[in-house]
Amino acid sequence: MAKKYVYFFSKEKADGNKSMKQLLGGKGANLAEMSSIGLPVPPGFTITTEVCRDYYENNRNYPKGLQSEIDKNLELLEKNLGKKLNDSNNPLLVSVRSGAAVSMPGMMDTILNLGLNDKSVEGLAKLTDNPRFAWDSYRRFIQMFGDVAMGVPHHAFEHQLEEVKRKVAKKKGIKKANSLVQEALNKAVPDVALNVDNLKELVDRYKKVYKKHKNSSFPQAPKQQLMKAIDAVFGSWNNKRAIAYREINGIKGLLGTAVNVQAMVFGNMGEDSGTGVGFTRNPSTGEDKLYGEYLMNAQGEDVVAGIRTPHPIDDMKKKDKAMYNKLIAVRKKLENHYKDMQDFEFTMEGSNLFMLQTRTGKRTAQAAVKIAVDMVKSKFISQKEALSRVTAEQLDQLLHPMFDEKEEKKAKLFSKSGLPASPGAAVGKAVFNAEDAQKQKGAGEDVILCRVETSPEDIKGMHAAKGILTARGGMTSHAAVVARGMGKCCVAGAGDITMEESKKQMKVGSKVVKEGDFISLNGTKGVVYLDKIKTIPPKMGGPFGVLMGWASKMKKLGVRTNADTPKDTKVAVELGAEGIGLCRTEHMFFEGERIISFRKMILVAPEVKSLRDSLEVENDEKEKEKIKKQLKEPLDQYLKALRELLPLQRKDFEGIFKALGGRPCTIRLLDPPLHEFLPHDAAGQKSLAKALDIKTAQVKRTVESLHEMNPMLGHRGCRLGISYPEITQMQIRAIIEAALKVSGKKNKVKPEVMVPLVGNVEEFRLQKKIIIETIEEVKKKKKIKKLPFTVKIGTMIEVPRAAVTADKIAQEADFFSFGTNDLTQMGCGFSRDDAGKFLGDYVNLGIYEKDPFQSLDLEGIGVLVETATKLGREEKSKIKIGICGEHGGDPDSVKFCHLIGLNYVSCSPFRVPIARLAAAKATWQSS
Amino acid sequence: MAKKYVYFFSKEKADGNKSMKQLLGGKGANLAEMSSIGLPVPPGFTITTEVCRDYYENNRNYPKGLQSEIDKNLELLEKNLGKKLNDSNNPLLVSVRSGAAVSMPGMMDTILNLGLNDKSVEGLAKLTDNPRFAWDSYRRFIQMFGDVAMGVPHHAFEHQLEEVKRKVAKKKGIKKANSLVQEALNKAVPDVALNVDNLKELVDRYKKVYKKHKNSSFPQAPKQQLMKAIDAVFGSWNNKRAIAYREINGIKGLLGTAVNVQAMVFGNMGEDSGTGVGFTRNPSTGEDKLYGEYLMNAQGEDVVAGIRTPHPIDDMKKKDKAMYNKLIAVRKKLENHYKDMQDFEFTMEGSNLFMLQTRTGKRTAQAAVKIAVDMVKSKFISQKEALSRVTAEQLDQLLHPMFDEKEEKKAKLFSKSGLPASPGAAVGKAVFNAEDAQKQKGAGEDVILCRVETSPEDIKGMHAAKGILTARGGMTSHAAVVARGMGKCCVAGAGDITMEESKKQMKVGSKVVKEGDFISLNGTKGVVYLDKIKTIPPKMGGPFGVLMGWASKMKKLGVRTNADTPKDTKVAVELGAEGIGLCRTEHMFFEGERIISFRKMILVAPEVKSLRDSLEVENDEKEKEKIKKQLKEPLDQYLKALRELLPLQRKDFEGIFKALGGRPCTIRLLDPPLHEFLPHDAAGQKSLAKALDIKTAQVKRTVESLHEMNPMLGHRGCRLGISYPEITQMQIRAIIEAALKVSGKKNKVKPEVMVPLVGNVEEFRLQKKIIIETIEEVKKKKKIKKLPFTVKIGTMIEVPRAAVTADKIAQEADFFSFGTNDLTQMGCGFSRDDAGKFLGDYVNLGIYEKDPFQSLDLEGIGVLVETATKLGREEKSKIKIGICGEHGGDPDSVKFCHLIGLNYVSCSPFRVPIARLAAAKATWQSS
Repeated sequence: MAKKYVYFFSKEKADGNKSMKQLLGGKGANLAEMSSIGLPVPPGFTITTEVCRDYYENNRNYPKGLQSEIDKNLELLEKNLGKKLNDSNNPLLVSVRSGAAVSMPGMMDTILNLGLNDKSVEGLAKLTDNPRFAWDSYRRFIQMFGDVAMGVPHHAFEHQLEEVKRKVAKKKGIKKANSLVQEALNKAVPDVALNVDNLKELVDRYKKVYKKHKNSSFPQAPKQQLMKAIDAVFGSWNNKRAIAYREINGIKGLLGTAVNVQAMVFGNMGEDSGTGVGFTRNPSTGEDKLYGEYLMNAQGEDVVAGIRTPHPIDDMKKKDKAMYNKLIAVRKKLENHYKDMQDFEFTMEGSNLFMLQTRTGKRTAQAAVKIAVDMVKSKFISQKEALSRVTAEQLDQLLHPMFDEKEEKKAKLFSKSGLPASPGAAVGKAVFNAEDAQKQKGAGEDVILCRVETSPEDIKGMHAAKGILTARGGMTSHAAVVARGMGKCCVAGAGDITMEESKKQMKVGSKVVKEGDFISLNGTKGVVYLDKIKTIPPKMGGPFGVLMGWASKMKKLGVRTNADTPKDTKVAVELGAEGIGLCRTEHMFFEGERIISFRKMILVAPEVKSLRDSLEVENDEKEKEKIKKQLKEPLDQYLKALRELLPLQRKDFEGIFKALGGRPCTIRLLDPPLHEFLPHDAAGQKSLAKALDIKTAQVKRTVESLHEMNPMLGHRGCRLGISYPEITQMQIRAIIEAALKVSGKKNKVKPEVMVPLVGNVEEFRLQKKIIIETIEEVKKKKKIKKLPFTVKIGTMIEVPRAAVTADKIAQEADFFSFGTNDLTQMGCGFSRDDAGKFLGDYVNLGIYEKDPFQSLDLEGIGVLVETATKLGREEKSKIKIGICGEHGGDPDSVKFCHLIGLNYVSCSPFRVPIARLAAAKATWQSS
Repeated sequence: MAKKYVYFFSKEKADGNKSMKQLLGGKGANLAEMSSIGLPVPPGFTITTEVCRDYYENNRNYPKGLQSEIDKNLELLEKNLGKKLNDSNNPLLVSVRSGAAVSMPGMMDTILNLGLNDKSVEGLAKLTDNPRFAWDSYRRFIQMFGDVAMGVPHHAFEHQLEEVKRKVAKKKGIKKANSLVQEALNKAVPDVALNVDNLKELVDRYKKVYKKHKNSSFPQAPKQQLMKAIDAVFGSWNNKRAIAYREINGIKGLLGTAVNVQAMVFGNMGEDSGTGVGFTRNPSTGEDKLYGEYLMNAQGEDVVAGIRTPHPIDDMKKKDKAMYNKLIAVRKKLENHYKDMQDFEFTMEGSNLFMLQTRTGKRTAQAAVKIAVDMVKSKFISQKEALSRVTAEQLDQLLHPMFDEKEEKKAKLFSKSGLPASPGAAVGKAVFNAEDAQKQKGAGEDVILCRVETSPEDIKGMHAAKGILTARGGMTSHAAVVARGMGKCCVAGAGDITMEESKKQMKVGSKVVKEGDFISLNGTKGVVYLDKIKTIPPKMGGPFGVLMGWASKMKKLGVRTNADTPKDTKVAVELGAEGIGLCRTEHMFFEGERIISFRKMILVAPEVKSLRDSLEVENDEKEKEKIKKQLKEPLDQYLKALRELLPLQRKDFEGIFKALGGRPCTIRLLDPPLHEFLPHDAAGQKSLAKALDIKTAQVKRTVESLHEMNPMLGHRGCRLGISYPEITQMQIRAIIEAALKVSGKKNKVKPEVMVPLVGNVEEFRLQKKIIIETIEEVKKKKKIKKLPFTVKIGTMIEVPRAAVTADKIAQEADFFSFGTNDLTQMGCGFSRDDAGKFLGDYVNLGIYEKDPFQSLDLEGIGVLVETATKLGREEKSKIKIGICGEHGGDPDSVKFCHLIGLNYVSCSPFRVPIARLAAAKATWQSS
């Protein structure tokens, strides 16, 4: 059988259906579908996307047989309507529209009224008894055809329209008609003010314009018009705009566009006609009610152009109850058939309603959730289908305040070079250091903390701020990670901002923001504005909870959270976290006065270590005694500082254990290099020295001695616990003592101690030994024979070496947790703090499909994760394995974790629902 | 059969042999061996190391049956000699010596004259007709037994000796005898001046000392003496010193020590007796001639004590030709039997020669090579055996100047905390910056460049210096890598040095070295001295070449070199390099005036990139024009600077291609981050600004904008070539043009372009495209249809991600070269610049067996290397794979590379012979 190139659609016969989007385009497939379910669609036919492909593959020649198929279908159409294309008295007029499987604004859109010529315009005038309508239709057709299909410049036609209007204006006696600006001219002589003669003159002028630009007369033969229009649609598939659109939006794998040729219906045939756009439910709120707007005496393009203000569809209930009821019936039919919220375009020609298009309706996050849940209740769809219809992005929007879109569009831009580091919207006065943030917040102000980059010292200021803006750093920079953890809006790495912290101001070109000036951050887009923009608070109403419940029921992967405080833990548990997968103890050291004790410890620690090392290698007994004497004072200080920290840490853990209500808690031992906790600027060092009553030089010396070329690969993680076993001991003591305090009949605790940055099983062994010994000491001190809870001891897998030696590590570890941030940094060789300089290029160039810090690089880092999981399970089949990098909240990464059989993912509190949803979807995406 | 605990040896019967070192210790096994081949060994027996093990395993109890075996063997010994242990008239005297499989100075060594007591001393006096000898032997025995076996403090005996000497001195009428210092007293009354009465008094006093300290009388029963001595030997196996010695020297897997009980012979029985140490060849030069020294009328301990100066063995030829001939016969017998150079201890009792010990003789590097080669010539050993006997360390010594050992021992220490970063010795005046190094070198001085750490800016200074000393950085820090490349002595990361570059001085505690002070570096040990120490130049004589020839014949693995200059290349080729495996182009940028051009380029490059990026995303045509205008000037500067660099780079490559004489040359494209090439201090920035006639602020701004938190993981490697394609283009042009110039009928060139830091095949694809396009451009410009040589395009595998996706990369790459330095950094998560702070601990704690930057971490990084090799070969079976990290010169790593089937290793020029040797050995080590 020969290939079919053209598909007919009418009430009586529809060759296609909605499943044929690839072949007929979205528009064509749904026109056929609507026809076949008895909706009033003007008949027509669709030329397939395969024709488009063949056209390009054969050097812009159509496949053999196409013309005859077009002719045949045209005949069918003429027969169906009892009109003929070339009949001057009762002409068939058609629209020609492009339509690919994916909506593509880059292509040629629409030509209306095709079939009109110098003769049939008169026929139409007679037939409709409306010459003005006929001539207006003709002049519009010439302009559309010339401009859209034949490439005559738009302004050439506009210029003629202006000339005619000036003539009319002069006649009306309007002064200075020749020099009126466009806007005033349009006001004085609107389109509707042109009479039949004016329009005839315009037709004449338009034809001249056409001839001048195309070197041939405007084609009078409707068949020729049609074929040229079809050429134009196929030609537009590969114009620059369309190619760019596909590139930008990552649209791949389409054959081409289809062409839809459809009988014209006229919403502009008089005051009883009209056109409109409808939604079967409210796309903004999800309300289960017809929604939309319409214009009388207008064609579709008038609604789009926005010159006249359309009426809400509810108005029709009063004005034309019969038509309204027809729309209600359409709504019901569409939803019953499509089982989803649809949008649709319609035209009313007198009392007749015609459907011109339908698609799955775009909707807000809130509406998406409500519609999905409502449709399950109505048994339209299954719970699984409901979950499929809600995206991660939509959930994310629901969880954070957002800007009012209209206000945001009008707002004055400050910078758009930032990264969307933590979603949501924030408005406040700019402040340039953490202290000011706290002060101003204390004075009741909303503030945005603006920094070159943040460090752990800024934590309090970040807490106080509504949002965080940095000029440096990537998606997993300190600012971004901490902000996401706090569920706080953050724009990071806005490279065009010159941040002048000391002057308390920042600049982009000539735009300056000073302390106290209001700015607005859009953390979902990475944009900064100079105004106060109205925000819309997050809505986590009933349907959200219902949907999340279904997700949890279906998912197999556990979802935990990364949380460091009782408050964050509470939020995460409310959002459905099943435990803590990563509790970063270092963040605690910045709370309150404890930073002082911690810094005291750091200031003597290197000296303690150095003297201990000397002691070890020294053979001379006298020298040994000397060293021991030297060691005494710093060692005392070091141990004293740790003793001061113990009760504070213990209290933190108590709070977290309580907030978890018996859920497991993975606590990571101290991880960052010690120098991160010391001030690096002269002023900070001076004030620290003062606070500790020591010399500034000593502080400076310690900072210098701790300096590292590549701190990411430096003296951190378990390397600290190995050099300073007392830190590990203090932390374990705090954990166990806290667990003992909280644990009771009612309360359970499940502490899991996690050793960071293990690359070699020996590191883990050494730390595990200290951990077990310390637990024994606590038991002895508390006179307990057996702890009333189990303590698991496991490790991060974040060093590539650990991944490839995971079998050895599994011999010792109770669990693995992939630290995919660091694993990505080391595995790909990118510092997350520096990669901003080239990672954007890398994604643009397609080297990485997505930022590997946002979505796990499955091809590379994924291999390491999978290898380690395999090796680990081969050694210890039941070993618990999770992931606690930032990727734990990324849907694609979550899916991957499900597929390779991990036990859980852990992510920041506000990503927990997203992870739950992704985990649920993964269960059927994988099968 | 019951286990045998005691092995007898005598001319007639030797239970053991030389293969039984584990059981009998080295000494015992060789005493048995010498006995059995007819050498004159005083008879005796050896108690096995198994007894030692059982002794410790059974709570310091001997195994059942041991005592009876000892008794039996003692009887055998008595019978053999016709003497009895407890016979006062003809007493059997024995020595008791420890002896493990490995020589261990930490253990109890020797007790002589055991068997003497108050009665037998008289018998001995009579028997030898030498009462003084007998009493001297007795007092020595008491002291040795008391001190060595029973733990009586040494000084307690010494004090008595002093008292007696003072009495003698007084009698002699020496003034102030009571207050003479020790040295003067010994001069006035040497040991030999004590007469029989004095010695009897001393014996009396010694026995009192013994009783005072041990609360019991000195044991008179020889059997009791013997058993206590045996106890002492076994006890000494686990004393602190012995344990520490084993730990420090990594001695593992021994059962314990053996105990050798052997009939005494007396070199101190008169002027016709003596003792000595011999070597069958000269251990210093390897000369094929008996070598050694001896003392008449002395026991072994006198030779060791160094109080009397022994005579060279040659003297004996004149003084006692008969004895000399006996020694010559012994030498011949030993070498014929052992097939190696042996050392031995001997005693001459009158005209009788006795052998007390033999071992494989320790030898210098030079001797090792000469002896090995000579012994092949004499058909003693095979070429393979010859290669086996020469170690990497020995070759290394041969290739570098070394200190005169005696002088070094006396030299004043400055620091011993440094790492042995590049071997050899260097002496010169301390200078504290590169400029001073060049100036002083220009003025004819030898200088040592002392820096906190070096950077590429210091290259010229490093060239000028004799040696390099840094206070920071590890074995693969910049200083270490560059120094090794230059074959220059370097001590790196001497952490106890406070380097005050601005003050032009450095300190360790109170020791200060100022500019111009002489210091000496031992780069083989990592030690710095405050004096000028005499150095011995390297000797690469004939035997070295012969041995290397054999190595090359046997090895299968290729050995290339890492070289960046024609000079280094020439050296490496002379040392046997088969090509360049790594030519680091960045080092070239520091030569001569080109650094100016290079810096000019860097100063505008970020601006060029930023404007280009803006241009790409800008849609507004007007804005685009604006940006293009802005771009013009920096772009011109950028391209101009690159044009200036082109001829310079081309010339470099010409020189290298010529020096290679047709061997292949792997050239790595620019690798380090750009900021490494800019001055980071204010003064440097100012002078650069002046040189380029721009504002200092601009320099500062660029330096700041290029700053990176973790430069190791930053904007470097192929990331540069992707951001700045013109740099790649310039380098390729230089390579191809140079190759065209050198290539001819006589000269071949084999350029191999290597793209660094590829983590993702797409990076490689993008760079490969530019490389191929540029080659085509050169061909077009030169009007060449086909290049007269092949250009291979390959990549480094140094990012873990590249290792696990090597199959994909192999689809595109002609070759892989493992950059194991960076692969170790990223794979283990250690920055080589910072790891010094903990890596020492890590090796001490056994987390890593060796520094993973020195010897490839086979268990971890080795897995990545093996995986990548496997994946690469699966995709492209013939892909050429090599290694060009610092590990290419480490014998264990070379062996690994051979085993996994790599094509070649590449290392710094002076490691090439070591790699060749290791590659040869690997061929039989693997089978």
